[in-house]
Amino acid sequence: MRVLSGIQPSGKLHLGNYFGMMKRMVEYQNNNELFAFIVNYHALTSVFDADKLREDTFNAVCDFLALGIDPEKAVFWVQSDVPEVTELSWLLSNVTGMGLLERSHSYKDKMAKGISASHGLFSYPVLMAADILAFGGEKVPVGKDQKQHLEIARDIAERFNNVYGETFIIPEADIAEDVALIPGVDGQKMSKSYGNTIEIFADEKTLKKKVMAIKTDATPIEEPKPIEDNALFEIYSIFLDKKEKEELKERFLTPGLKYGEVKKELFGVIWEYFAPYRKKRELYLNDKGEVHRILQKGAKKAREHASYYLDLARKNVGLNYLDY
Amino acid sequence: MRVLSGIQPSGKLHLGNYFGMMKRMVEYQNNNELFAFIVNYHALTSVFDADKLREDTFNAVCDFLALGIDPEKAVFWVQSDVPEVTELSWLLSNVTGMGLLERSHSYKDKMAKGISASHGLFSYPVLMAADILAFGGEKVPVGKDQKQHLEIARDIAERFNNVYGETFIIPEADIAEDVALIPGVDGQKMSKSYGNTIEIFADEKTLKKKVMAIKTDATPIEEPKPIEDNALFEIYSIFLDKKEKEELKERFLTPGLKYGEVKKELFGVIWEYFAPYRKKRELYLNDKGEVHRILQKGAKKAREHASYYLDLARKNVGLNYLDY
Repeated sequence: MRVLSGIQPSGKLHLGNYFGMMKRMVEYQNNNELFAFIVNYHALTSVFDADKLREDTFNAVCDFLALGIDPEKAVFWVQSDVPEVTELSWLLSNVTGMGLLERSHSYKDKMAKGISASHGLFSYPVLMAADILAFGGEKVPVGKDQKQHLEIARDIAERFNNVYGETFIIPEADIAEDVALIPGVDGQKMSKSYGNTIEIFADEKTLKKKVMAIKTDATPIEEPKPIEDNALFEIYSIFLDKKEKEELKERFLTPGLKYGEVKKELFGVIWEYFAPYRKKRELYLNDKGEVHRILQKGAKKAREHASYYLDLARKNVGLNYLDY
Repeated sequence: MRVLSGIQPSGKLHLGNYFGMMKRMVEYQNNNELFAFIVNYHALTSVFDADKLREDTFNAVCDFLALGIDPEKAVFWVQSDVPEVTELSWLLSNVTGMGLLERSHSYKDKMAKGISASHGLFSYPVLMAADILAFGGEKVPVGKDQKQHLEIARDIAERFNNVYGETFIIPEADIAEDVALIPGVDGQKMSKSYGNTIEIFADEKTLKKKVMAIKTDATPIEEPKPIEDNALFEIYSIFLDKKEKEELKERFLTPGLKYGEVKKELFGVIWEYFAPYRKKRELYLNDKGEVHRILQKGAKKAREHASYYLDLARKNVGLNYLDY
């Protein structure tokens, strides 16, 4: 099964990203044909600072390589290194009804908030469809917020096949229902937009500060601590196996536990957990030549696939004028 | 001055196209740097029949080569052979406000007529802007109906330069005010949409039939014929110099002139006028190899220019992540 995943170069990865998405992706890599890419074309709809985009893109590449994307197993590239998708996007536009895009929640939300939308933002789902169809993606892991975009991609593919003849594989959404909900330092879902994240590659001091800031309740030391709705307990648990989790539960239920000490301990656990990734990441960050070689190879593989579908689409719409 | 002109592969050229646009283009070729291309990407917004698009595109190429586009003087190519414009179109989309496109007359007209618009149709002006900006077009000859699209292209270029720094040349419209208005066989402006055209490469029998069908008034043979609002007189005049036109006027004003005979004569004039072009056109139609070589050379030249502007734009928006 060919699994396709576009990744926003959205800055610093946090525990929620890692346990919610990255680990899953690495699993796909082992059991499926994984196509993963950093969507810097799409990022242009919201990032108008070239330096920031360059930095975020390069960092995202290093993050993913460090965390386990294996360029020998997966096809891994940066979106703008395969510009074929923009051409395919134009071909798809002509069978995409305006209504389909006007009904897009993410577009309507922006409009409702009074954000003046650009044509790029409006066209976002068409380029996303091109991204999927150009590589023959069969399965696309999406969050609930991206579900509608995937349906738009399916609609466009079906319409194209109807108008011009069988061309594209119709992709299926893979909506993770059982994704671990990682709480942020304030107990809400960990999310950049809530400002409650713990970045996995933060420096030691920053990481410690973040962990120490996990919100805890005012239960006195001499009383047992609650484990329900306890962000500290929940975040710590992610790093534990079943037995270790039971032990932690015991400690929480035993009077005398000091939250501050558990936090210091958790900091150590997180710091150690990501140590090998951090080391690997440093290597990539300091070896642009190697990153470049990896991405070139990835883009080459990706282009071969994109060329197949693009050539077929070009032929089916009639751009091959010399074959007349 | 770099003059840029996109040509719709819209089927059979008629006298109106030739005297309204083609002759002017050949003049540009002699005194300016002419960039001319067949817009088959844009044609996809209205042509959903691949065979028809292939045929129209190939015919348009042969028509223009036959009528005097000189690939040694001008840069001449087919739009889809330089896919860089679709990538540039995406970069431009992100600085293109939705309002700018929603105000487009051609889009509003379609909507008013209840035609369900595609995203391609809506995005038409953005791709047109990319077409102009990718080649550093300075002057764009447009009809009055395309004037607004050119203004949109200017707006987009200015906005891009503002957001990302100086990148594109701001193109100027060149609106032909003095274009000869060629009447059709019914006396209205000659236009495919009125079904009143005289095709310049029609076969002998069809051409004769069309010319014989020019609408004339019921003035008796023994009376002088009017020359105002007389389609026959006006069409004939295009082929005459000043002195010859005076002579034709004399003949019309002299009683006894038979419209039927003048029509036969006019048919002969048209047939002869286009004889050398027809011959040249036949050569191209029967030598795909040569047409291919010409277009490959043209596309190569065009791509060099497009690459310059595209690379600059990619850099200015921040797609060059390795330069971080």
